[in-house]
Amino acid sequence: MRRHLLMAITLAAALALASPAAAAEPLPSWNEGQAQRAIVDFVQRVTEAGGADFVPVPERIAVFDNDGTLWAEKPMYVQLAFVLDRVKALAPQHPDWKDKQPFKAALEGDLKTIAAGGEHELLELVMATHAGMTTDAFAQVVMDWLATAKHPRFNRPYTELIYQPMLELLTYLRANGFKTYIVSGGGIEFMRPWTEKVYGIPPEQVIGSSIKTHFELSDGKPVLVRLPEINFIDDKAGKPVGSHMHIGRLPIAAFGNSDGDLQMIQWTTAGLGARFGLIVHHTDAEREYAYDRNSSVGRLDKALEMAKRQGWTVVNMKQDWKRIFP
Amino acid sequence: MRRHLLMAITLAAALALASPAAAAEPLPSWNEGQAQRAIVDFVQRVTEAGGADFVPVPERIAVFDNDGTLWAEKPMYVQLAFVLDRVKALAPQHPDWKDKQPFKAALEGDLKTIAAGGEHELLELVMATHAGMTTDAFAQVVMDWLATAKHPRFNRPYTELIYQPMLELLTYLRANGFKTYIVSGGGIEFMRPWTEKVYGIPPEQVIGSSIKTHFELSDGKPVLVRLPEINFIDDKAGKPVGSHMHIGRLPIAAFGNSDGDLQMIQWTTAGLGARFGLIVHHTDAEREYAYDRNSSVGRLDKALEMAKRQGWTVVNMKQDWKRIFP
Repeated sequence: MRRHLLMAITLAAALALASPAAAAEPLPSWNEGQAQRAIVDFVQRVTEAGGADFVPVPERIAVFDNDGTLWAEKPMYVQLAFVLDRVKALAPQHPDWKDKQPFKAALEGDLKTIAAGGEHELLELVMATHAGMTTDAFAQVVMDWLATAKHPRFNRPYTELIYQPMLELLTYLRANGFKTYIVSGGGIEFMRPWTEKVYGIPPEQVIGSSIKTHFELSDGKPVLVRLPEINFIDDKAGKPVGSHMHIGRLPIAAFGNSDGDLQMIQWTTAGLGARFGLIVHHTDAEREYAYDRNSSVGRLDKALEMAKRQGWTVVNMKQDWKRIFP
Repeated sequence: MRRHLLMAITLAAALALASPAAAAEPLPSWNEGQAQRAIVDFVQRVTEAGGADFVPVPERIAVFDNDGTLWAEKPMYVQLAFVLDRVKALAPQHPDWKDKQPFKAALEGDLKTIAAGGEHELLELVMATHAGMTTDAFAQVVMDWLATAKHPRFNRPYTELIYQPMLELLTYLRANGFKTYIVSGGGIEFMRPWTEKVYGIPPEQVIGSSIKTHFELSDGKPVLVRLPEINFIDDKAGKPVGSHMHIGRLPIAAFGNSDGDLQMIQWTTAGLGARFGLIVHHTDAEREYAYDRNSSVGRLDKALEMAKRQGWTVVNMKQDWKRIFP
């Protein structure tokens, strides 16, 4: 029985490590305060066996916005920086672009002209850089770009400009039986190649905006080709729709940072039983950025009002987070 | 240490039960033969640590067609039986239906006229019975119907006319670290309310055809309303598209029974490394049904030829399965 005894000790140790009670500091980068207490309190309530608010493991679904909630979205969405760099990289194959809008503006880094062109011109840039190749080829283009691209202010790769406190939150939730999903307005295929490594979120738990794809045989090999046609916009009222299409059940916790997340949090927290809604408020111009009502990227206005009325937790980055990036 | 010793014995027993090696008979309803051997051989190859064909757990994705692969699809798709019953149930609120096609034909159970009307008329019936209510209300309608509807030949609820050998296969794969998905031409929301209980497949692992939904506030409560508009048809070349949209990585095993599954199996088995494709051939008129090339429901023609050329496993139901239903 010696072998069994040893096994028992090993297993008991493993169980102790896995137990949430043993994790004395589940959120080390969070300052003690209302936000951190609200998170821990919620998790304890839904995981307490026999408790009034207990939620079985399969129903512990948490959804996270990406831009501005898990990683930085200023001075521009990372995917927009990708679009601009790709236009530059592809320009030699398209000599007409240097005299043709919106490509001319993209090549000159003239964001004002692009913004003035509105959604239609932006879409033209997206399609020129995201479509016309297989899903595998696109994933490779994204990974190659992320390997060298750097944030203009912090001079670090974008995948390092993720929020350490949110990483800890993801880990804490998963350690308590939650399945963590991304529900982002960004491109689903722009995120999937790296979210598992960076956030621990596998591709099947990433939901986002998409263009259509088409199955075909290329030299006898089946491939999916990306088409220059919008399939789904996973933003605002689209977030509950996209979330339901992929998950098929109501999340019990939703995390966002802008008005684009309002409906997702509203929909999640309206469900029966214990629910949790959280807004990350960017208040730290020194360590990251400070913006809300008047920002065109990640505008936080109505959702901030709603948070007060509905009792959602609001994270004050400057106050609540000991550190921003890993 | 007595408590630890007891714990060790309990845990050792639990581990033995969970261990694939200890499960001497993982597929008890399968006769020994080529199909059963091919399945076990594939699973052993991809799970053998250090083996040439080893596949890490997160990549062990298996996709299953539903109609005719996991449950019976004759004499008509279960969802079509649902449509016809719902037209009858809703008819009192639509007095015009008794003189208006295709509703008149549906009320009279006149399948020939419905079939002659083609896709357009069938869609009209689907929209009249599937749209115009919230996602929650539709799920309830499906569950209420399944609780009382019976198969015309076997006189049993449809959820009992599932294939016992395939249930064992699902369990066997999951015990070996696979994530099992449904990728069906049927309605995603028609399946999700019951697949977890019946197959052990949770809603987030169900992929299917869909109509659009719209987020709105109904008396202040956020709901998703089902719209009479096709969103996606998850059949034939749509299956790889739907599968990729939801999962984001290539499955390593695909299971189907008809030409509607051809592209899904083709796409799955074309990937690098160990791959597995399987076709269920309905050859048992006595215990279930026998059909292939000349059947309008679940036609199996090109996929049967392809299976021979590509070395996919073909299950001969009559020969390979000891029993059909649980």
